[in-house]
Order: sequence, then structure tokens, then C-alpha cells
Amino acid sequence: MTAAAHSPATTGKTFDLGPAAELVSKEEGHRQPLAPEFVSLEDFSPLEVAYDFGRVRREDIEAGPRSIWRYKHLLPVPSTVEQHPNTEPGCTRLVRADNLAKALGVKQIWIKDDTGNPTHSFKDRVVAVALAAAREFGFKVLACPSTGNLANAVAAAAARAGWDSVVLVPKTLERAKILMSAVYDGSLLAVDGNYDDVNRLATELAGEHEDWAFVNVNVRPYYSEGSKTLAFEVAEQLGWRKPEQIVVPIASGSQLTKVYKGFNEFAQLDLIEDSPVRIFGAQASGCSPVSSAFKGGHDVVQPVRPDTIARSLAIGAPADGPYVLDIVRKTGGAIEDVTDEEVVEGIRLLARTEGIFAETAGGVTVATAKKLLEAGKLDPDAETVLLITGDGLKTLDAVQDGIGPKATVAPSTEAVDEALGLR
Amino acid sequence: MTAAAHSPATTGKTFDLGPAAELVSKEEGHRQPLAPEFVSLEDFSPLEVAYDFGRVRREDIEAGPRSIWRYKHLLPVPSTVEQHPNTEPGCTRLVRADNLAKALGVKQIWIKDDTGNPTHSFKDRVVAVALAAAREFGFKVLACPSTGNLANAVAAAAARAGWDSVVLVPKTLERAKILMSAVYDGSLLAVDGNYDDVNRLATELAGEHEDWAFVNVNVRPYYSEGSKTLAFEVAEQLGWRKPEQIVVPIASGSQLTKVYKGFNEFAQLDLIEDSPVRIFGAQASGCSPVSSAFKGGHDVVQPVRPDTIARSLAIGAPADGPYVLDIVRKTGGAIEDVTDEEVVEGIRLLARTEGIFAETAGGVTVATAKKLLEAGKLDPDAETVLLITGDGLKTLDAVQDGIGPKATVAPSTEAVDEALGLR
Repeated sequence: MTAAAHSPATTGKTFDLGPAAELVSKEEGHRQPLAPEFVSLEDFSPLEVAYDFGRVRREDIEAGPRSIWRYKHLLPVPSTVEQHPNTEPGCTRLVRADNLAKALGVKQIWIKDDTGNPTHSFKDRVVAVALAAAREFGFKVLACPSTGNLANAVAAAAARAGWDSVVLVPKTLERAKILMSAVYDGSLLAVDGNYDDVNRLATELAGEHEDWAFVNVNVRPYYSEGSKTLAFEVAEQLGWRKPEQIVVPIASGSQLTKVYKGFNEFAQLDLIEDSPVRIFGAQASGCSPVSSAFKGGHDVVQPVRPDTIARSLAIGAPADGPYVLDIVRKTGGAIEDVTDEEVVEGIRLLARTEGIFAETAGGVTVATAKKLLEAGKLDPDAETVLLITGDGLKTLDAVQDGIGPKATVAPSTEAVDEALGLR
Repeated sequence: MTAAAHSPATTGKTFDLGPAAELVSKEEGHRQPLAPEFVSLEDFSPLEVAYDFGRVRREDIEAGPRSIWRYKHLLPVPSTVEQHPNTEPGCTRLVRADNLAKALGVKQIWIKDDTGNPTHSFKDRVVAVALAAAREFGFKVLACPSTGNLANAVAAAAARAGWDSVVLVPKTLERAKILMSAVYDGSLLAVDGNYDDVNRLATELAGEHEDWAFVNVNVRPYYSEGSKTLAFEVAEQLGWRKPEQIVVPIASGSQLTKVYKGFNEFAQLDLIEDSPVRIFGAQASGCSPVSSAFKGGHDVVQPVRPDTIARSLAIGAPADGPYVLDIVRKTGGAIEDVTDEEVVEGIRLLARTEGIFAETAGGVTVATAKKLLEAGKLDPDAETVLLITGDGLKTLDAVQDGIGPKATVAPSTEAVDEALGLR
């Protein structure tokens, strides 16, 4: 059975995915028509979308909707994409984080706060693109294996679009992520295994159910393009330019590769200057296969069995690991990993300084930035963007031990003053 | 001790709060200079901000930032407000809810989805305005009594601004709201009492601590104006016009009165046509003093002891109750209340149809809209806006009994197919 064996009948059909022209294999550049396929049968490497952009101007983007669809001319979606019911993700805040910058001793930090998306993580971006492509390919069910944020995004997007969903999660997932997936009333299944088991299961199911679009499996080439919008927005929000440094959390590694691709496409279209941007990767030490490979000087990523509170990053066999290593090395970045204790400290530091409550993945990013600064790998004099990709409300267990009310008091001013040390 | 006795020295000082001109008492219209005061000493009614707007054009608003500050010329804030660190709330989605409309049998519903705000409730709007006014008045500490959402918003806004915060909550508050208040590292105190006890305590403390701005007590006239931005955004997002009907949840009642005021100000400034809008109120039956007064034909609201899962609406002595009754009656609206079971059904209905996960207050709004439709009070042929003011992740306990995975399965395709009834 091949990757394409059971996808909706595509032979001879052409699909309107806007500027997307064909699929190209990442290793040897073999080209093939647009279809719901994700692996090249020529060289067995992942397939990626190639485009025929034509001219795209800043004014066209600025006149577009306040969502990722303002960038539809750079995404594999039909030009009418925003007319179909979708969650309208994107255009989240880019916050100038002077308090955090001061605390870390650096010149300038910006927080890209993707907790403002509809289901409060960056996954709404990629799912919206996957749904648009899946609709064009004729799929009927939106599906995914997930560590949680993707489950929330798929279940919500399917509900909004009036589609059925099949969402597979490890049974050990955080309560908030389970409930926020279940509430949309699709088919949520808890799987007795870790994420890598669930992911393998999804690949098998994608081959057997011809009308199921597993967003991160059989429509992955389209889905993953959604992450480019993080780079697009950062560049537009900075006043049409790249930052000098950006720190990106690594799960499968897809996001980091697409952030890089997004900046490159903007430069290629002369929307921004092609200035250098150093790309840094962040992992939790309990699941740090890419960080280990980077530090060991390897090109290949050795799979690990995850054991970290940063469950949204707990992918032991990251599909895009080798590409991440390549990009980080060629841009002059670095990859580092942090302990669970440092993750919690990272969450608290960001909350305390900027009033932004990130999930564990955000804690990983902040703590890794701190560690890279201390090691002299991040330049404190360069403008730095941190990607905060998910919400603290989804990973409350991670912080609950260290925080809470200062005191429980009787309803009297004396009791309050005493609790605050004011009398 | 009067309301103004211990506020920062204001005698003879003038404050730059943009278009705000003076304070006026709601009952008899007594006027007094802008100051951190909230009750008229002439007639003991609440003070409200009066303006000298000058000319405000649609173009001025459209050219403004993508936050509530695009409406700064209609708020009691300095013209430089966006230059101070703040959470930049507002400009949340207005979602065309065709699936929900179909499920309820009505022509057109729009969801104003305020879960997209920085701390995921509408409270970020009012707190941002309160902080701006408090800064101008010379306060040093941002404080509040809260049922949860306000606690999150105050603690986050203070952290972002570099201010200390004192946040008082009932000790029985939901875990998510406690943790999300504590993480920003201000002074969070759990009070042994219900919200009305905590509120009384805050009023006493505001009189004793001259540099504490209790956002919803001593700077309440400014704070409450922030809710006007809900009406402003709805009108702008509809293409510069009012909806025909709007359903607003009632806690203190302030939000409903300010939504009404917001539409009126837009009409007064010729930004929109002064078409009729019928305003409806939503309460939980376990705390329905305003609904009871409405149904009983009373002008006075009899306080109750709250007992409902909709804790963010659990204010037994709602300060703006009489004004709510007046507005709802004169616009031709109605007020209804729903049981806790209906609240949960409302949350699930909205999630299932539109992919939006609301907190219990949102469930109250949706369920009340359904009940008002069934009773023939909401017109199914009129365009209706529902205000969804808070996030489902904050009230997980309310939904956890009814929802969860369809099944827990082994990591095999057979197990998945069997669980889904496909073999």
C-alpha cells in the first residue's frame, strides 16, 4: 500500500489550491502533481508544496482579512478560502517584551503570542490550511493524532465547518486538552500508548479510510505550510522586515522549517529585505533528540522515549529533525534543551514580566532563550523573537505545585493587611 | 469616610483622560470634576463619565491600532494610551454562526467571541481602561475583588505594566482561575466568603489604601466604560451598523448598560444609523435577581445568595440591576434565566455547532437565547448577536461529567474501527 493508495480519486483531476503548483520531494526534488500524498515514491522523502506565486504586494496583504487568509496568495488554498466556515486563526499579538528583555539582560525581545488563536495555540493555523486543502481534495472527515493542541484545533475546526472528526490522543493527556477536544462532539479516542504510537496508528488508518484527511499525515504537505504564517505575521508586524534572531520550539520540527521557509518566501517576493535571521531551536531535556543531535554534531536524529512535562513537544521521533539541524546550522543558530524545572521557571518568568501565561512549550522556549543567552549563543544585542505557541490554561498541572494564593483570609481589612505584611 | 477621602490627592488637579470631561451622577445628573470617585455625594447614585467628544470619524477609527485603543477618542484615557505597556485587548472575532442559527431555527446569529482576548475574557477590555485612568490619577497598585475572570485580567495587566497587584477572590473559585491569577506573581488572596463578601471587603480597603486602584470600585466609572468597546466592535464589524437584537449576560449588569451606551454614542456621533436594537439579558437561575425583578415587573432588584455553576455571573447584589431593567424594557428586550443543566447544554451546543468553547457565562447566554426564542421573545427573523465573554478552559468542572473520549482503545486500526462502529 502506498501513501496515495486510498486517498480520494485524484487521477487526472486538477485541484485549485491557489498558488500551489505541485509537490516536490525534499531530498532529491522529484516533482509530482498536487494530491493528498506526503511521501515521494521516488526517494521516500517528505513531499513539500512548490508554488507559482506571481506577484504579491504588501498592499494586497494589508487589504486582506485580519486572519491568516491575508496571506492566502502564499498558501496552498483556493482563492475563495475565507468564504467557507473556518476558525479564522492568526493575526495574533506581537508583544514588545521590555520587562522580559530587562530581566534577561538583552536589548529587545518580541513575544509572538499565539495563545490568542481560537483554540489558543498555533495549531489553528495549520489546521485551517489543512481543512481548506482537504475540502478541495474531497475528503469528508478531519482527523489527527495529537499531543493535545492539535486535537483541540481539529475538533473545533471540524465542528465549525460541519465536518465529522476523528481525533486520536494518548490516554495520558492533560485533562484540559482532553475536555477541550471532547466538547466539540467529534469522535475523540484515547489510545493506550504514547504519541509516537498514536502517530503510527494514524498513518495506518489514513491508508485504510479513504475519506479521512489526517491533517498531519496524508495532507501534511498542505497542513505544515500553515506555520509559514507565523513568519509572515512577525515580519509584517515588525514593519516588513525580519528579526535578527528567533527562538522556535521543536516537536516534529515542522514549525521551525516553515518559519524559515516563510521568511525566505517573503524575501524572494521582495516583500522584505533578505537580511540574515539566526534560527534557534528549543526542546525539553526529557525529549531532546534534535538538541542532542545538534550538540553531538550529527545529521541524523536518534529517536528517544519522551519523559517531560512539555507534552505538546513530546515527539520522540521528530519527522523534520534533519531539516531542522540543517537550517539551524546554516543560519548560525543553535539548539538547546531545558529541564522540567527550568520549563516551569520559564512559564513563571514570562507571566511575571509580561502578563502572558504560556503552556509548557512556551516555558521551554523562554527557558531555552535564557540558557542560550547565558551560554553566549544568543546575541543579547540582537533583536529576538520568541514564539509562544500555546496556552497556560492547558497545562495547569505543570505549575500548580509552585503557585497559588499568598494566603486565605477572613473577609476583613485587618486580615488582608496582615496577610500582606502591612500591619 | 467618603468615597473620595483617601484617593490620591486630586484637589485642584486636572487629569488628561482624553475626551472625558467630568463625572455625572446617574440618578439626578449632578456634575463633578474627573477624579477617582464612584458615588455621588449629592444623590448617592453611581457616577458615570461624561464626554466632550468633538468630531470622530470612521476613518480615524479604522486607521487606529487593532485593539480597543482604536476607540480611544470615545474612552476616558489619555491620547497616548497605547504607548504604555498594556495587554492590548479587543478586536476579537465576530463569527457568523450559521450552524447555531440553523440549530435554533433563526435567520442570523453572530457570536462576539471574547475568548480571544489576552486572558480570554472581556475583562481585559475594562481593566485596560481602568489601568490607563489609574495611571493618570497617580495610583501605584492595581486591585480588584473578582469572581475569576477579572482576577486573571488584573493580575496580567499589572504584570505587563510593571505594577503591583492585590487580587481578592472567593476561596471556592475554580482551580483554573486561581492558578491563572497566581501565575503572574502579584498578591493573590483567597477570601473566606462569597463574591458579595469579597466585594464589600474591597470597598473598605479602597478607603484605607490611598494608592490602590480597585478597578471595579474606586475607578469603576472609568473601568466600566471599557465594555462600550464590545458595542463599538460589533457595530464596526457588522459594517458600521447596529444589530437588531443582542443578548448580554448579567453579573453586576454593568456590561449590558455600557453596550447600550456604546451603541448610542456611535449613533450620536453619526458613525452609525440610530436604528433600534433590542437588548436582552441572560442570568443563571441560581443567581437571577435581575431576571426575577424583570419577570415580576419590579424596578428594584432584591439581592439573592448565589448558587450556580456560572460563578463569573454569581453576583447576588448587582449594582447596575435597576439600570439594566430600564434599558431592557425601553428597548423592547427581555431577561430570562436558565438552570445549570441548561448552561452546560448551552456550552455544548455552541461548541458542537461553531467550534467555540465558552465558559459557563457563555453557556448562560446561549441557553437563554434558546429559551427566549422558544418563548417568542427573541424574534427568529431578526439578526441577533450573542456576547460570549469568557473561555471554557476556565470552567472545565462544569462540563467534565458529560464529556470525554468516546472510548480508550489499543493502538490498532481494528480497535479504532470497532470503537467507531465501523466493523
